[in-house]
Amino acid sequence: MSLLVFGTVALDNVKTPCGVRKNMLGGSASHFAMSSRLFTKVHLTAVVGEDFPKRHLQFLRRKGIDLSSLAVGRGKTFRWEGEYKKNDFNTALTLATELGVLVGEEAYVKKHQQNIPNVFLANIDPDMQMGILHMMRKPRLVGLDSMNLWIDHKRPSLKRLMKKVDLFVANDGEARALTGEGNLIKAAKKLRQFGPSLIVVKKGEHGVLFYSDSFMFAFPAYPVEKVVDPTGAGDTFAGGLMGYLCQVKKLNKTALKKAVIYATTVASFNVEGFGVAKTSTLNLTRVHKRMNELVRFMTP
Amino acid sequence: MSLLVFGTVALDNVKTPCGVRKNMLGGSASHFAMSSRLFTKVHLTAVVGEDFPKRHLQFLRRKGIDLSSLAVGRGKTFRWEGEYKKNDFNTALTLATELGVLVGEEAYVKKHQQNIPNVFLANIDPDMQMGILHMMRKPRLVGLDSMNLWIDHKRPSLKRLMKKVDLFVANDGEARALTGEGNLIKAAKKLRQFGPSLIVVKKGEHGVLFYSDSFMFAFPAYPVEKVVDPTGAGDTFAGGLMGYLCQVKKLNKTALKKAVIYATTVASFNVEGFGVAKTSTLNLTRVHKRMNELVRFMTP
Repeated sequence: MSLLVFGTVALDNVKTPCGVRKNMLGGSASHFAMSSRLFTKVHLTAVVGEDFPKRHLQFLRRKGIDLSSLAVGRGKTFRWEGEYKKNDFNTALTLATELGVLVGEEAYVKKHQQNIPNVFLANIDPDMQMGILHMMRKPRLVGLDSMNLWIDHKRPSLKRLMKKVDLFVANDGEARALTGEGNLIKAAKKLRQFGPSLIVVKKGEHGVLFYSDSFMFAFPAYPVEKVVDPTGAGDTFAGGLMGYLCQVKKLNKTALKKAVIYATTVASFNVEGFGVAKTSTLNLTRVHKRMNELVRFMTP
Repeated sequence: MSLLVFGTVALDNVKTPCGVRKNMLGGSASHFAMSSRLFTKVHLTAVVGEDFPKRHLQFLRRKGIDLSSLAVGRGKTFRWEGEYKKNDFNTALTLATELGVLVGEEAYVKKHQQNIPNVFLANIDPDMQMGILHMMRKPRLVGLDSMNLWIDHKRPSLKRLMKKVDLFVANDGEARALTGEGNLIKAAKKLRQFGPSLIVVKKGEHGVLFYSDSFMFAFPAYPVEKVVDPTGAGDTFAGGLMGYLCQVKKLNKTALKKAVIYATTVASFNVEGFGVAKTSTLNLTRVHKRMNELVRFMTP
């Protein structure tokens, strides 16, 4: 079952203790697509600017990602510049953001893609996410990610949107900010009351908490020693999660546990390289090898 | 196999969003004993002051804890006053500390207890911990806990002591402070190089990381929704860990995984009440019931 992702496709400048990279392919939809492509056919919708390098487009297509609904707007591509300091890879310091074509240009989904059964609304303005969701015809499974910026500035839009999605992924800080609950179990329960029946709270190096009405579980992260660049780890995680759920076509406990383990595994590769360097060269054989290690690491 | 614990026996004043308690039985050795007693015979060595309430002594004895080596020094009992703020149970704000008899008075181990095979040096001045360790005759298993105060002010003493112990428990902040490593896997490896062959990094609500030369694993915490007072959770955890290891008399992977699961379970009870309110009334039937829930919660 194919999967449509909407979010940002960006140009990233990133500085970490391991080095500096400029004009990398970045953005929530790019990172998501790079991991979900391992499990299912992925269609990407986003708006880029006239300056978006052809090599990035070719690269995405070579990875099997359908770009029929990638709009090229008048103006510049969304840019993010960030830094991670030594011994604090959990905090991304945003040095600059240039919205470019994200202001004023409309994203779309081509008619032949509007009945794709699985949709993921990766991090971007919740009003834009709602716009894309309205274009889709009765999707089977809708996932949503957001960030503190929208929680702070577009809370009503985000909460309206949450009523229409099945799966919500948030990091621990976002879960706390959106619910006002310090305790993550309580926060997860409150997020569920906002609408989505499946709640995934990502805790970075500390792993994941999953909550639904009938069961919950928590898994640790894969133990990565050499973190290079965590940008996009959450999007990569969401890509693995949704990708596997599309492949397995089930939403029971076994499927969801396995989806979270896949997601954790692909996210661990993401942080080991700059941008999509590690995830874009990944295959399922290597994912399965690391997944087996992870399962041994976490099995009681 | 019996177990000797050395640490503090204190009088605690604690304020949390759930209420205020004064003159509670507290201290690292008290909390440790209250959980380890569920698994093995526990001997407690510590120094209290002349003001230490008889009811607390009687209470400890009623719980089966051997107090032969509990010294009553001239002066006042060690006191700790702390507060936890709403939505931040991870940070204990120390409002006041009165060392009392911890300055100048010597702890001891009675002759008939010096060949107890298992020793735990709960959090207290590392020079005092070394003094007690020297009194013991060839212990089979020695565990050690410490805190930031000693890492900052008595690092050489602590590192000398680490060369003589088998198992070291630290929380994530302490592991980072002691090693200078932000990455917890790297920090655990470095702690192992300092001496102890078994490293347990406690991450509070995020669970535990275990490291040894031949294997490592990570488990989540039990999902507690109603945290009342986390004081002593780490000591309670260590008590469950050491207690079970004494009972099972093995140090292989299976035993260590099970010990960490027991430790996690008893610690989850500790945070649900003030002081030792919950752990002192605990029995193994209730521990096993919650342990089964925890295993279901964490099984891949």
